[in-house]
Amino acid sequence: MMKGLLAVLLVLMAISSSMGKPEKQAEKKEKRVPQTLSRGWGDELIWAQTYEEALYKSHSSNKPLMVIFHLEDCPHSSALKKAFANHKEIQKIADEDFILLNLLFETTDKHLSPDGQYVPRILFVDPSLTVRADITGRYGNRLYAYEPSDLHLLLSNMHKAKKLLKTEL
Amino acid sequence: MMKGLLAVLLVLMAISSSMGKPEKQAEKKEKRVPQTLSRGWGDELIWAQTYEEALYKSHSSNKPLMVIFHLEDCPHSSALKKAFANHKEIQKIADEDFILLNLLFETTDKHLSPDGQYVPRILFVDPSLTVRADITGRYGNRLYAYEPSDLHLLLSNMHKAKKLLKTEL
Repeated sequence: MMKGLLAVLLVLMAISSSMGKPEKQAEKKEKRVPQTLSRGWGDELIWAQTYEEALYKSHSSNKPLMVIFHLEDCPHSSALKKAFANHKEIQKIADEDFILLNLLFETTDKHLSPDGQYVPRILFVDPSLTVRADITGRYGNRLYAYEPSDLHLLLSNMHKAKKLLKTEL
Repeated sequence: MMKGLLAVLLVLMAISSSMGKPEKQAEKKEKRVPQTLSRGWGDELIWAQTYEEALYKSHSSNKPLMVIFHLEDCPHSSALKKAFANHKEIQKIADEDFILLNLLFETTDKHLSPDGQYVPRILFVDPSLTVRADITGRYGNRLYAYEPSDLHLLLSNMHKAKKLLKTEL
């Protein structure tokens, strides 16, 4: 039983060292606000909880999946989140045409980190379950990073992701 | 890139056929309530979002992990959830001594389904990342199932899970 999980552990160790400290625990004894799945990226949108769920929903609905990696203490993530949540056109197309997932922790699927693990970064996955590594932002050293001023490019990339890949059978 | 995800797809196909229809989409145009990570199992508790996150937190905090598999349209899940959320002692020990995760979708880790995939079921994972298949409920055909009347057994199993396994180095 140990063996099956050891690979996961090794990946996690690598992630933990690159992620800094885990989220702060909420203060004890203070009434806690329930955590939301949107985490501020659009409370009106429907979010998948896990990558497995998101892949299943993308495949069965034939809608592309958008995966947002972020961290709660990261100012770049927060700035992008605020712009994303306030961008009416992005919120609308996200709601209508995408399966959505935002993650604070990396998955074990290395296809979701074609040029490394950093935040914020946004990857698209075709319903054929192919990660769209070809859909990139404008930074040569961090291909899947976006800044608040890049939302026009993100929107155009969302339109690109909507053009589904042909599945070869 | 396709290949890496094909194994996941095969697992998902198997899951989808055993899970019935996916969650209902919220009605369009109606103001949506943000989805919570607790999903009703204890709004005051801190929930991990994904299995990867939960494993990481269990290992780094040296607290056992409790994984609850459930479905929103399942009356057995709903009944157990209600009893669980209202059980003060379970909520307290869950808050203080456990990393918590509730999932609507199966993971790809078969160690979390020692006797198959069904809901509701509750598995414990030791911080050494060993799934505690030895901690079972009282139904011979569904070892990890609990009914609302079994919460005393669940509580005693939580105490069992708190006795951590010795890690052999």
